[in-house]
Amino acid sequence: MTKVSPLAPESFPDLPEIGGVRFAAVAAGVRYAGRVDVMLAELAEGTQMAGVFTRSTTRAAPVLDCQAKIAGPAEGRAAIIVNSGNANAFTGRNGIDATRAVTSAVAETLGIAEARVFSSSTGVIGEPLPHGRITAKLDELKAALDGAAIDRAARAIMTTDTFPKGVSAEVPLPGGTVRIAGIAKGSGMIAPDMATMLVYIFTDAKIERPVLQSMLDDLVGPTFNSITVDSDTSTSDALLLAATGASGVAVKEPEGLFKEALRGVMLDLAHQVVRDGEGATKFVEVRVTGADSDAGARTHAMAIANSPLIKTAVAGEDPNWGRVVMAIGKSGAPADRDRLAIWFGETQVAADGWVHPEYREADGATHMKGQEIKIRVDLGLGNGEATVWTCDLTHGYISINADYRS
Amino acid sequence: MTKVSPLAPESFPDLPEIGGVRFAAVAAGVRYAGRVDVMLAELAEGTQMAGVFTRSTTRAAPVLDCQAKIAGPAEGRAAIIVNSGNANAFTGRNGIDATRAVTSAVAETLGIAEARVFSSSTGVIGEPLPHGRITAKLDELKAALDGAAIDRAARAIMTTDTFPKGVSAEVPLPGGTVRIAGIAKGSGMIAPDMATMLVYIFTDAKIERPVLQSMLDDLVGPTFNSITVDSDTSTSDALLLAATGASGVAVKEPEGLFKEALRGVMLDLAHQVVRDGEGATKFVEVRVTGADSDAGARTHAMAIANSPLIKTAVAGEDPNWGRVVMAIGKSGAPADRDRLAIWFGETQVAADGWVHPEYREADGATHMKGQEIKIRVDLGLGNGEATVWTCDLTHGYISINADYRS
Repeated sequence: MTKVSPLAPESFPDLPEIGGVRFAAVAAGVRYAGRVDVMLAELAEGTQMAGVFTRSTTRAAPVLDCQAKIAGPAEGRAAIIVNSGNANAFTGRNGIDATRAVTSAVAETLGIAEARVFSSSTGVIGEPLPHGRITAKLDELKAALDGAAIDRAARAIMTTDTFPKGVSAEVPLPGGTVRIAGIAKGSGMIAPDMATMLVYIFTDAKIERPVLQSMLDDLVGPTFNSITVDSDTSTSDALLLAATGASGVAVKEPEGLFKEALRGVMLDLAHQVVRDGEGATKFVEVRVTGADSDAGARTHAMAIANSPLIKTAVAGEDPNWGRVVMAIGKSGAPADRDRLAIWFGETQVAADGWVHPEYREADGATHMKGQEIKIRVDLGLGNGEATVWTCDLTHGYISINADYRS
Repeated sequence: MTKVSPLAPESFPDLPEIGGVRFAAVAAGVRYAGRVDVMLAELAEGTQMAGVFTRSTTRAAPVLDCQAKIAGPAEGRAAIIVNSGNANAFTGRNGIDATRAVTSAVAETLGIAEARVFSSSTGVIGEPLPHGRITAKLDELKAALDGAAIDRAARAIMTTDTFPKGVSAEVPLPGGTVRIAGIAKGSGMIAPDMATMLVYIFTDAKIERPVLQSMLDDLVGPTFNSITVDSDTSTSDALLLAATGASGVAVKEPEGLFKEALRGVMLDLAHQVVRDGEGATKFVEVRVTGADSDAGARTHAMAIANSPLIKTAVAGEDPNWGRVVMAIGKSGAPADRDRLAIWFGETQVAADGWVHPEYREADGATHMKGQEIKIRVDLGLGNGEATVWTCDLTHGYISINADYRS
């Protein structure tokens, strides 16, 4: 149905095996026949888990189940099971029963505790999860478990993503090298459905849960929580981070090389999600400096990144700095109209609350013709700053979300 | 360029003359040749003024000027001068100078105090207002002043609105009948430009400014502040309300028949603005009941009305209640997933956090095929309620804001 995003990477990266993690994926026919739609990850004994989840008040059943389990003791092996095709969201009491049917069957199949089985579902909302189709495939999944199959897992969690998303890092630490590999799914739709974001990151580093969770809590703000495709928040967003310890290399401090590598992995996956935003043809970085606080800078940056008028201007390759002024004005955070400065790429378009005296429309227009757009605003108030990422708003977005009905 | 909105009324209404108000409009060539683009309203001696304005921190110069004048003494005649084609926004110090050039010339031409001349500008942003083109037409405008010319004024303030917007009411009060007439411009664009909303309401009732302003402050919340086309707030929004007193009929209480009639006029104009929303093909009422507070209900209603996924679903005639659940979940206001009930039109689609047992997709789909869409949500928490209005998000919106460049 949908062509691969023009912003997609050339190919799926060659991800390293992560000691202590094995993957499998199958076509279970959850909603559509003939595509892989269930992935299983088996995690070595003692794997430490951390997670962050949507703050929606209408969270889906598997999200609630993960939240209840995430801080439990790291005893024995663990597992992550994910299906696409059905989000098991807004399914009443039936929803949690269906989630438990899946997690208990995984626990039994792998011989592990149900409290160590984490699940996600993504796809159509409000329809009962056909959990029997998933559990019927567990023996097949178990038999297929393979440390090198992460690419199949990345494909199984796609809905209408136009490309699978993966990234890895190697971190040379004093005790030896550790590896990180992550996969994500982004904002694809199966009408009547909603965008969901799922992210799974694995490392063979040995990290206790409190340190792991604290890194994740720190890093989710400037990475996944700093992207927006259309300002609509899913009921199913979930990020799970598993540290198997298989490398034997311990990371004991929350700050340092490992955290920086993890930041890079999370930021790369977050950017890949934006690059596969529905209908996206441009990748947009919005940077706000000179705000009265970092929080104020973020409010302005998100107002710019979520503005339909700015996103359509980007689609139209229009260096429309007036709309940037508008978004700053409406954001609610402090601003002084007559101190504003705005750049498109390297070109300064506005200074001191008016068009820059040397700005020529042709310079702004040249930058807007590219695929990688940078909008920078300096507020001239203080030292607060923030960077967020988004994509443009195009006919493709309307087509994906309005023109087709399942 | 743009066809008349399918949601437009059949014709401009026959508005009554309002004693104490005379109108004129001319083609001054502010930006485009050959269309009326400046209106002047002259207001009788002692006319009381009230106003509400955008809360944007990047407000345009004429908005700041109106705000400085609105509470001044009602001595002598007053005037309102409005141009389309140039918003005089984000024009630095030049902006306030240009506004004063216009208001002082109007004051001189009509022989009134400059403090009694209110101005608005709408159109392109960041370019100096060619105020000489406006002031050159003031003698012509003065000569054309006519109590019956409100329809020409309604046309002069349009940018790419697809129809002029007007409405009136007659209010039989104990002391005699008073009349209200209002005009508005909505969300049209001239790239590189932004949506602006301007509203002018006139009455021959005799009302002191404190009462007039208090009515307006009360009524703007449930009317103009309860509509949204695309969540982007203009730097130029302004509503001016002028009470000439020419009827001799006094309104002394802030509550009562007059206020209800004024509410009707404001609500009707607000709805007309939505019906001319860029690319609109459906008019959508969102009603939220059962919230923990009215403020909570409003937060949910606006989250629904601003959701691109819901607005595209409406465009696609898709009874996609899952996206309504999503919007409630993300809004930040209290909600309990398992108490939610949702209706499309008269059809209940969800109850107790799941699809209603008797809901058939065909019933929801039938409602969505209409031009007037009603979405209702009951949260089951308390007595808070709110109603807001919006339109759908279509290819037309993208075309207007991305495809064309001026």
